[in-house]
Amino acid sequence: MRIEVICTGDEVLTGKIVNTNFSYISQKLEDFGLAVTWETTVGDDREDLLLAFRLAGDRADAVIVNGGLGPTVDDLSQEIAARAAGVELELNEPWLATMEDYFRRRSRVMPSNNRKQAMLPAGAEALDNPVGTACGFAVTIGRARFMFTPGVPRELRRMLEDQIIPRLLAKAGKQTAIYLKRFHTYGIGESHADSLLSGVEALALGGRVKLGFRAHYPQLETKLAVRGADMDEVSRTLAPVEEAVRKRFGNFIVAEDDATLEGVVLGALRAREATLAIVETFSSGQIAGRIAHLPGAEAVLRRGVVARRREDICAVVGLDPDALKEGMSKEAAGMVARAALAQTGATHALAVLVDVDDGADRIEFAGTICLAIVTANDTVLRRSRVVGGRDWVRLGVVEMGLDCLRRYLQDLPVDERIDFEKVE
Amino acid sequence: MRIEVICTGDEVLTGKIVNTNFSYISQKLEDFGLAVTWETTVGDDREDLLLAFRLAGDRADAVIVNGGLGPTVDDLSQEIAARAAGVELELNEPWLATMEDYFRRRSRVMPSNNRKQAMLPAGAEALDNPVGTACGFAVTIGRARFMFTPGVPRELRRMLEDQIIPRLLAKAGKQTAIYLKRFHTYGIGESHADSLLSGVEALALGGRVKLGFRAHYPQLETKLAVRGADMDEVSRTLAPVEEAVRKRFGNFIVAEDDATLEGVVLGALRAREATLAIVETFSSGQIAGRIAHLPGAEAVLRRGVVARRREDICAVVGLDPDALKEGMSKEAAGMVARAALAQTGATHALAVLVDVDDGADRIEFAGTICLAIVTANDTVLRRSRVVGGRDWVRLGVVEMGLDCLRRYLQDLPVDERIDFEKVE
Repeated sequence: MRIEVICTGDEVLTGKIVNTNFSYISQKLEDFGLAVTWETTVGDDREDLLLAFRLAGDRADAVIVNGGLGPTVDDLSQEIAARAAGVELELNEPWLATMEDYFRRRSRVMPSNNRKQAMLPAGAEALDNPVGTACGFAVTIGRARFMFTPGVPRELRRMLEDQIIPRLLAKAGKQTAIYLKRFHTYGIGESHADSLLSGVEALALGGRVKLGFRAHYPQLETKLAVRGADMDEVSRTLAPVEEAVRKRFGNFIVAEDDATLEGVVLGALRAREATLAIVETFSSGQIAGRIAHLPGAEAVLRRGVVARRREDICAVVGLDPDALKEGMSKEAAGMVARAALAQTGATHALAVLVDVDDGADRIEFAGTICLAIVTANDTVLRRSRVVGGRDWVRLGVVEMGLDCLRRYLQDLPVDERIDFEKVE
Repeated sequence: MRIEVICTGDEVLTGKIVNTNFSYISQKLEDFGLAVTWETTVGDDREDLLLAFRLAGDRADAVIVNGGLGPTVDDLSQEIAARAAGVELELNEPWLATMEDYFRRRSRVMPSNNRKQAMLPAGAEALDNPVGTACGFAVTIGRARFMFTPGVPRELRRMLEDQIIPRLLAKAGKQTAIYLKRFHTYGIGESHADSLLSGVEALALGGRVKLGFRAHYPQLETKLAVRGADMDEVSRTLAPVEEAVRKRFGNFIVAEDDATLEGVVLGALRAREATLAIVETFSSGQIAGRIAHLPGAEAVLRRGVVARRREDICAVVGLDPDALKEGMSKEAAGMVARAALAQTGATHALAVLVDVDDGADRIEFAGTICLAIVTANDTVLRRSRVVGGRDWVRLGVVEMGLDCLRRYLQDLPVDERIDFEKVE
C-alpha cells in the first residue's frame, strides 16, 4: 500500500515551524508496519494545494493531509478537497452541534467563523476530534483515500492514533488491535542494542512484533510494535518478546513506556522517604535541574549545588579549601558527597565532579568523571572518561549521574561498563 | 521566480530525523527575499527520485536538492540527476584531487568508495564544499536549474550561503552583497515588536532591508536582511535601520548576532573581575546551568545552589530556618541573596525565588517570582508573576533571572515591565 503525506501551511513551508508533525506521522506509521513513500509540503495556496492533491491522488492508495482545517480564511483544506473530489461543501450538522457544545461547556459563545470548520465535502466521512474544533474527514480523490487532519500537534496525534491508523491497517488488510511497548536505556549504543536483541522478533507467535530504535543521545528508545486480533492476543504475543528484551538489556533499562529516568529516581527516593543533596561541576546543575521542578521534588531534593573551581566546591560543602588540591579522584568525590550529606542532613548525597580538557571545543574533547553516592552507612564510587566535544560530554555526565543514582536505588552495580565511555 | 526544495533520504522520510535542513533552507532564503513554493521529501529510491526531479523540473525555475551525495550505495543523487538531465556521469578530476588532499591532510588514505563522490553529471557546474567530501553541483533538468547539496547540516549551511544564495539572487536579478543583522530581545512579544518597528524598513535607502522575526520563547530574534552592490553599500544601507531598531527596542536587546544573553552576562562579570553566587528554587538550577559550563565561567561562578522548600533555602545560605516563614517576597529574596554573598565571598549574588501554584499543570498555572541582585553596597529587587503552565513559567523565570542580571550589569532598570508578566 502506497501512503503519501501532504503538509500544508505557510508557517511550515517558510520554515518558521520545523515540521515535527510529519516526522511524528511517519514514525507512528512505521511503528505499525506502514511506510510513507512520499511527502509534499505546500503553502496556503489554492492552486498548489489542488495540484498536490491531484498528483498524490494519482500515485497513492492513501494520503494523510495535515493542516488547513482551522476557522480562518487561509485554512483551505476542505474547500480544495471538495474541488479535487468534484463535490460541493455542505454543512455537517452533527459537527456544528459538537462545536457549539464545546464552546458552551467553556462558557463561551461560538464565534461565527468557526461554522466554517463544520463545512465538509459532500459525502465525506467525518473523523472525530475529541480535543479541538477542527473536524477531520476522509474523502476519495483520484484512486486514493485522503484523510484530513488538524495542524495542532495534540489534535493530530489523537486523530492519528484513534482514527487514521486503524483505517490504514484495515485498508492494508492488517489486524487492528495495536500496541506499542517502549524501553528506555542508557549506556547501550544503537548498533549494540540491535545485536543484543537479535532474533527477539521471532519469539512472538506469528511474527507480529516489529522492533525499532530511536536514538536521542544519551538515551536510546527501543520500540516493540505489536498487532493482533484483540488486546488479549496482543498481550500474549508481546509477553515472550518483552521478557527477552528485559533480560537482554538487563540493568541498562532506565524506564519503560511514558516513565522517565528522573521520574524513576524521584519515585525510588520518595518510596523510601529519602532526601537528596547533589553537588555538580561541569554538568552545571543540570542533574538537579532534571529533578528539582518535578511535582513532589520539594519533599526530596534538599539541595543542589554547582561550582566550577576546586576551592569553590570545597567551600560549598564546608570542606577545607585545600581538600581537593591533590586533584579530582573518585575518593575526592566521596569526600565531597560525605560533606554534603553531613551539611544538609539528607539521607543520600550524589557528587559528580568533572575534569574537562583544556582548550577549544573539538570532537576529541573529553571529560573525566568522578562520581560518588553516599548514605549514612554506604559509599559507592565510580570513575569514567567520556569523549565527544563539550556538549556531548556534558549531556553524558548528566545522564550518568542520574543513572548511577537509579542503579544504586535499585541495588544494581553502578560501575557497569557503558558504550559511551573510553577505556583507559 | 519559483523555487522548490527536494529532500532525499530514508532517514528523513521515515521521520527518524526531523527535517531541520528544510526549515533552515527556507528561512535562509526568506532572509534574502526568496520564497520556497513547494517541498518534496522522497526516500533513497530511484523511481521516486527520478519522478520528483522531473515534476519539479517542469514546475520550477530553481530547485535545491538536499542529501544523497555520500559515498554509499544508497546515495543516489548524482546518478538520478544524470538520468533526469539525459547525460552520463563523469569523473570530476579537480574534486577527486581535492578529496585525496582532504584525506592526506588528515593522514588517512581515501577509501575507494569515496571516488563515487567525484562522479558528476556531464557538464555539471561544481559547487565547492570546503568542509566535507560531498561535492555540490548544478545542472539543468527540464526548465529548472537544480542545485545539489549535502545532507550534513554543517556542509549544507556553508554551501547554501557561499554558493547557492548568490546564484539564486543573480538568477532573480537581485544584488548579491548580502548581510543578515540579528537582534535578540527578551520581554517583547512578536506582535508588540512588529508594531514597535513599524516603518523601519523605509529608513533604508532604496528599501533593500527586509525585516523578519523568529520567536523562540522566551527570546525573540529580529532579523534585518540587507542587500546591496557591495558590503560598503550594505553597511551604509543598514546603518539608519540598525540605529532605529536599537533605539526602539532599547533596554530589551539582550544580545546581537551570534552573542547570547548568558555570554553577555558572563562577559560583563569577567570585565569587572566580578564573581557570582546564584540561589534558585523552581528554576531548578537552570540559571546557573546557562552559565556554569561556558569557557571562563570557572573564574566567575563561585556557587550555584538550588532548593525547593523554604527551610532548605534558608539552610543552604546559612540563614535561620524560620527566616522565610512569612513567605516569599522580594525582601525575602534580598535577604537570601545577601546571605549568599556573605557566605561565598562573591562580589555579586542573584536570588530567584518562585512560588508556584498548587495542583496539576494547566495553561493558567502561574508562578510568582521574587528576585534580588545584591553587591556589597547595593540591593536591587523585583517581583513578577508569569502565567502559562509549568514549563512556560520555568523557562520564563530562567530568562528573567539572567536578564535582570544583564540589566543590572549594564546599569539599566531591572524592573521594566515585560510583555510576559501578568499585571496584578
